[in-house]
Amino acid sequence: MTRRIAVLAHGGFPDGAKTATGVLRYADAEVVAVLDRDIAGDDPDARIADHLSGVADAPIVASSADAPEFDALVIGIAPIGGGFDETWRADVTDAIESGADVVSGLHYFLADDPEFARLAGEHDVELWDVRRPPEDVTVAEGIARELDTEIITTVGTDCSTGKMTTTRELYEAAVDRGVDAGFIPTGQTGIIIEDWGIPIDRTVSDFTAGAVERMVRERSDHDYLFVEGQGSIVHPAYSPVTLGILHGSMPDSLVLCHEAGREAIHGYEEFEIPNPGYVAELYESLAESVAPTEVVAGALNTAHLTESGADDAKARYRSQLTAPVADPIRDGVDELLEAVL
Amino acid sequence: MTRRIAVLAHGGFPDGAKTATGVLRYADAEVVAVLDRDIAGDDPDARIADHLSGVADAPIVASSADAPEFDALVIGIAPIGGGFDETWRADVTDAIESGADVVSGLHYFLADDPEFARLAGEHDVELWDVRRPPEDVTVAEGIARELDTEIITTVGTDCSTGKMTTTRELYEAAVDRGVDAGFIPTGQTGIIIEDWGIPIDRTVSDFTAGAVERMVRERSDHDYLFVEGQGSIVHPAYSPVTLGILHGSMPDSLVLCHEAGREAIHGYEEFEIPNPGYVAELYESLAESVAPTEVVAGALNTAHLTESGADDAKARYRSQLTAPVADPIRDGVDELLEAVL
Repeated sequence: MTRRIAVLAHGGFPDGAKTATGVLRYADAEVVAVLDRDIAGDDPDARIADHLSGVADAPIVASSADAPEFDALVIGIAPIGGGFDETWRADVTDAIESGADVVSGLHYFLADDPEFARLAGEHDVELWDVRRPPEDVTVAEGIARELDTEIITTVGTDCSTGKMTTTRELYEAAVDRGVDAGFIPTGQTGIIIEDWGIPIDRTVSDFTAGAVERMVRERSDHDYLFVEGQGSIVHPAYSPVTLGILHGSMPDSLVLCHEAGREAIHGYEEFEIPNPGYVAELYESLAESVAPTEVVAGALNTAHLTESGADDAKARYRSQLTAPVADPIRDGVDELLEAVL
Repeated sequence: MTRRIAVLAHGGFPDGAKTATGVLRYADAEVVAVLDRDIAGDDPDARIADHLSGVADAPIVASSADAPEFDALVIGIAPIGGGFDETWRADVTDAIESGADVVSGLHYFLADDPEFARLAGEHDVELWDVRRPPEDVTVAEGIARELDTEIITTVGTDCSTGKMTTTRELYEAAVDRGVDAGFIPTGQTGIIIEDWGIPIDRTVSDFTAGAVERMVRERSDHDYLFVEGQGSIVHPAYSPVTLGILHGSMPDSLVLCHEAGREAIHGYEEFEIPNPGYVAELYESLAESVAPTEVVAGALNTAHLTESGADDAKARYRSQLTAPVADPIRDGVDELLEAVL
């Protein structure tokens, strides 16, 4: 039975609510409403279709209480730092009191909130803190390269370059072609979509590769696994997470994700992003002695460019990588999929 | 006042008790006894000097109760997995009941053990779980490269190649020369020696670089900082920890530590260690776009070789790195220090 969900995205829908848009695009669930009180305040008849295309339509409402009946409330937005915004409290308590589960990828754990925990007990609903890793994650054994499954991992020149989207689009296109494929989520949005997974950025650093290895091992009955990458090997803060995914998944091939025109690390503007061709070689060198692999395709986010600007950017990216290149949203992923299958 | 400590190393002293030997070599404390019931059982008059040279002498005893009076018991040995060995319980409780603090680098936290916690409260002693990171560690800002201090970080071709020893010897030799230097510990032994520090392998992976940055920032009033590295960039399980230290400390120079003759990753024998020259270049490439640096010297562990074997190994290592090379224990660190100052 498909679950009916409401997605909280106050003040951020759609561009500032990455989890909300990811859930709308990819989750196997019926979204009955998006909660965005700013949009609903401006237009009481607002609908998702007015703001985001290519996903199922539903009303945008101001609060949980205004939404049609649902089975789970998903927190679809994350303030900087991952804290809980107290202005959302009524939405969460109303959801719990109506018998709905609550799913959250925040660093703040709802199950540790005394009020939410008490209410959830009273109403027998689940508070699922997606970002809490399992307690028994441990060190990698270094066995992913021996698994009898073809592993494709996305990597990036920076955060927010489209790794989740590219991975998901590749996975779905493969399944559509009849390929026996699995999706390995490593971040909160992917985990919510897949209803399974380990948040790699929250694991103990000694166990980061081990957590990825555990997931690919668990799903190694598939012929192909598409592993969602995180961050970038040239990121001054998040590179350990990136490397844990590279060494833990030991991929057969890599797809490098880049945003056209981005020159500096997002939020760390004094750090230049090197030539993507150089970044690709760095990933290959790092993999070499652990489990050799190659960047076989490039995904380029050209959302803010015109058609001809995008064509120029893709031509440049193609020559930097000497590999097939496409914008998964603009062009689809057929060409990229050919390169990895 | 110098603290008097007893060091627990049952069944492992000296070669299987890395923390015990590190504490004996480098801690600013008076070791009144080593606890090793196997050695003391064979020879009731056993002394440290019979088993380890170059450190202050003291008796080896079978239990806490047999040791001269001390202010703190240090757990100087770690079983695989970092658990607590229940046969040590009487030593810990006796120590607490005699009014001594207990210092442990185990993954098992003594303060979470109900019996130890209760006893420690009753006797007003401290249980210091060195491996518990502070709660408020957060993401790196990427500022270590701007600090007005010269940062030297040790890196390795594998775990257990002598990074802690090399870093500590360089630091102490620098201080002996009158250089204003600080030591940045990143693992349990270094933290116990320094009585300060964050266990980098236990931080959340998103915060690994941030934890290192926080330490170098806190000590940046020194002219030179010597940062203890961990693991290796080519290690299939621990590479994220290594990279967090490289990108978090943004060093001015690197010292690459290698064990002569070691060909495979310790405990992961199917993973070959590449040519050290290649590993050095990999560290430099990884640092390049975040904070450029160079391998300026090599430390070679030649403990198991003859004098002439060691000379051959050093000549080979020197040509691989094209940099000055020495075995810090056999040769001292003068030549290496010249290269980094």
